[in-house]
Amino acid sequence: MRRLIVALLLVIPFGPAWAGPVTSFTLDNGMEVVVIEDHRAPAVTQMVWYRAGSADEPPGMSGVAHFLEHLLFKGTETLEPGEFSATVARHGGTDNAFTSYDYTAYFQRIAADRLGLVMEMEADRMANLRLSENDIATERDVILEERNQRVENSPAALFRERMGAVQYLNHPYGAPIIGWRHEMEALDRAAAVDFYSTYYAPNNAILIVAGDADPEEVRALAEKHYGPIPANPDLPERIRPQEPPQLAERRLSLRDPRVSQPYVARSYLAPERDSGAQREAAALTLLAALMGNGQTSVLNEALQFEQSIAVQVGAWYSGMSLDDASLDFVVVPAPGVTLDEAEAALGEVLTGFLETGPDPEHLERIKSQLRAQEIYERDDVTALAQRYGRALTQGLTVADVQAWPDILQEITDEEIMDAARNVLDRERSVTGYLMAPEVTQ
Amino acid sequence: MRRLIVALLLVIPFGPAWAGPVTSFTLDNGMEVVVIEDHRAPAVTQMVWYRAGSADEPPGMSGVAHFLEHLLFKGTETLEPGEFSATVARHGGTDNAFTSYDYTAYFQRIAADRLGLVMEMEADRMANLRLSENDIATERDVILEERNQRVENSPAALFRERMGAVQYLNHPYGAPIIGWRHEMEALDRAAAVDFYSTYYAPNNAILIVAGDADPEEVRALAEKHYGPIPANPDLPERIRPQEPPQLAERRLSLRDPRVSQPYVARSYLAPERDSGAQREAAALTLLAALMGNGQTSVLNEALQFEQSIAVQVGAWYSGMSLDDASLDFVVVPAPGVTLDEAEAALGEVLTGFLETGPDPEHLERIKSQLRAQEIYERDDVTALAQRYGRALTQGLTVADVQAWPDILQEITDEEIMDAARNVLDRERSVTGYLMAPEVTQ
Repeated sequence: MRRLIVALLLVIPFGPAWAGPVTSFTLDNGMEVVVIEDHRAPAVTQMVWYRAGSADEPPGMSGVAHFLEHLLFKGTETLEPGEFSATVARHGGTDNAFTSYDYTAYFQRIAADRLGLVMEMEADRMANLRLSENDIATERDVILEERNQRVENSPAALFRERMGAVQYLNHPYGAPIIGWRHEMEALDRAAAVDFYSTYYAPNNAILIVAGDADPEEVRALAEKHYGPIPANPDLPERIRPQEPPQLAERRLSLRDPRVSQPYVARSYLAPERDSGAQREAAALTLLAALMGNGQTSVLNEALQFEQSIAVQVGAWYSGMSLDDASLDFVVVPAPGVTLDEAEAALGEVLTGFLETGPDPEHLERIKSQLRAQEIYERDDVTALAQRYGRALTQGLTVADVQAWPDILQEITDEEIMDAARNVLDRERSVTGYLMAPEVTQ
Repeated sequence: MRRLIVALLLVIPFGPAWAGPVTSFTLDNGMEVVVIEDHRAPAVTQMVWYRAGSADEPPGMSGVAHFLEHLLFKGTETLEPGEFSATVARHGGTDNAFTSYDYTAYFQRIAADRLGLVMEMEADRMANLRLSENDIATERDVILEERNQRVENSPAALFRERMGAVQYLNHPYGAPIIGWRHEMEALDRAAAVDFYSTYYAPNNAILIVAGDADPEEVRALAEKHYGPIPANPDLPERIRPQEPPQLAERRLSLRDPRVSQPYVARSYLAPERDSGAQREAAALTLLAALMGNGQTSVLNEALQFEQSIAVQVGAWYSGMSLDDASLDFVVVPAPGVTLDEAEAALGEVLTGFLETGPDPEHLERIKSQLRAQEIYERDDVTALAQRYGRALTQGLTVADVQAWPDILQEITDEEIMDAARNVLDRERSVTGYLMAPEVTQ
């Protein structure tokens, strides 16, 4: 592995020829366009990202953003339900969509000379969606079944939902992206159409074209297909309810008979990446990697190898959110170790880290891994397109995205320690136990 | 005390002469009117209740219902700011207002022959409020200072806020009535005016006149003063986000250096009183009284007298809410007793109660106390007016209010046990510790 990283590092000086140039511009109707060139294969990825996700839903209508994502595959004035994806497939392409807290995105991967075709269809469903009551009823069953499979059938998913709901006291990130089941059941045509007409407009969308495309050709095609769609003059400001000061440490226990492997999770409210101010988020990214990434992570070394307390550990931070993010830890205890013991051991490792700070060699290794990851991702235009789309829907700019890899490399151990001291505050934390019910006689 | 209760019980057969007849009717514009006659003194209480409280606020605007309550004392087209209360006082009356989760209410107590005057002014500010930017800035400072005094200066109040926020994962009852400070700071004229024009309308209001008033005269005056105000045809349906299944027991700890007396609180999500279906709420009312009311309560006997674990205990249930209510317990440990020990003792008492059920004599005593309380309250027309106002703003009817005292008396110990078994479910509970920070070296 080490050898591979070195090899990749050696490649860098020869230039990131495959990654691009990245060109961006804005249409007259406010639609942002980002073109990521990659001419190695005659294929292109189109993504349209809307600055509208589950955290933008009206109260009581959780799930409507994701519901609408499903409904976009129904018909328009000129396309029959299902015809969009069938057309893409007939031309040898693939398409899909996804929804998160801050965005909903649609994409197709197709032969480069079919870009106009997918733009025409994507522009069509941005403006001309037609939803019958039958579409609504059918697709509501689909999303409810999706929730069954992904959430109700998974104690871990139910647990994550409740962790989120207790982490966020006021912010809509406390509700699941897929929606609370009882609210999903009540989603109707009016709810979907309201969300659509509020948020699906060119001045709330970002078009990303990645692959074998020329920026000027993309501009001409975008002007032709998206240009005629008028901006929504009533697009609401994107202001969500924010958290009050988090003053009280929280805990929760979810007991479910289906749990065979209990574990403890700890989540700390953490700042997100902000445009022009990404250093703390970069420090937290490194902190999470130091703590939980790979065999030599701090948690792994202490809890798995030295003490045999855990069979698995993890640490995550993603500052890719418009509002407050979280820094998360998980410890899956070894057989015979209680959740209390696992939690205490996690606490000791965190306390110890706050005293000693990162090992310089370890930090250097993490930075090398991030450089390598960066290089891998440059090879994948769809991953690059996702990176820009996610960033631009959370208030970052193309320049922020491009600065990020260097910022990660610049972060000092002092900055990591400052970020850790700031974020590892129990008052802003939730500790959760997922476990089987106690056996009672 | 026992003697007093008996004496009062003897009085009942002589009739509730003072708790005069209750008449209710509706004006053509949808305004409900309830008249509670009490001719013992030539005074009258007017209350206007709006079906709009903090739980009806738009997301991110917590506090606007209470803010607007303050602003209603500013001017109208014909009244100068402050003139409303000054006029009431000049006529020998008093006035005030209050806001809760489900309602905002305004009242005056004044000589009976001034009822027309206060109706004229109350109707005026229902329709013709005028708010200057200066009013907004001044009164926002007032409510922020109110929050400082009532909440920020009180660890117990901060603790109750966080308990509520963790009890309600999705319902707006999780936000404090007074508002989250950061959202109060952002309240502006538009927010207040929006809330006012949405909810302050006769078809969303209940007029209660209690005291020396004749129903037909009240009808004539109400038609004269409130009748001309048009109904709001766009009054929204009163549907709030409801709780998802509460699957995970929650805990929180608030550590504040100002805490001199730590305590443990336990809150269980509980059903509210519903129109025509008040028996479970009545059983919970009795349960709370059995557990925490007075020197001979179950908790007091066990934790204070027998075990000396607590210096104070309490149990509360108020089903007077439109949506899910809560059943709450507090144990203030005796010196030397830890919060863990106090919580364990509370748990044992609850478990024991679920096994043994209420002592019949104790239950009878509680019912007697409730009968006595009922009689006391009949003597207080303002309390009666409040009772009807609260009930009618949460979906109950005049008939529900009148049936309630008898229902309380009818509840059996089996119904109490059923309600206790249903509600005392840790998965729907929050346990909170309020304490001073640990002393660290």
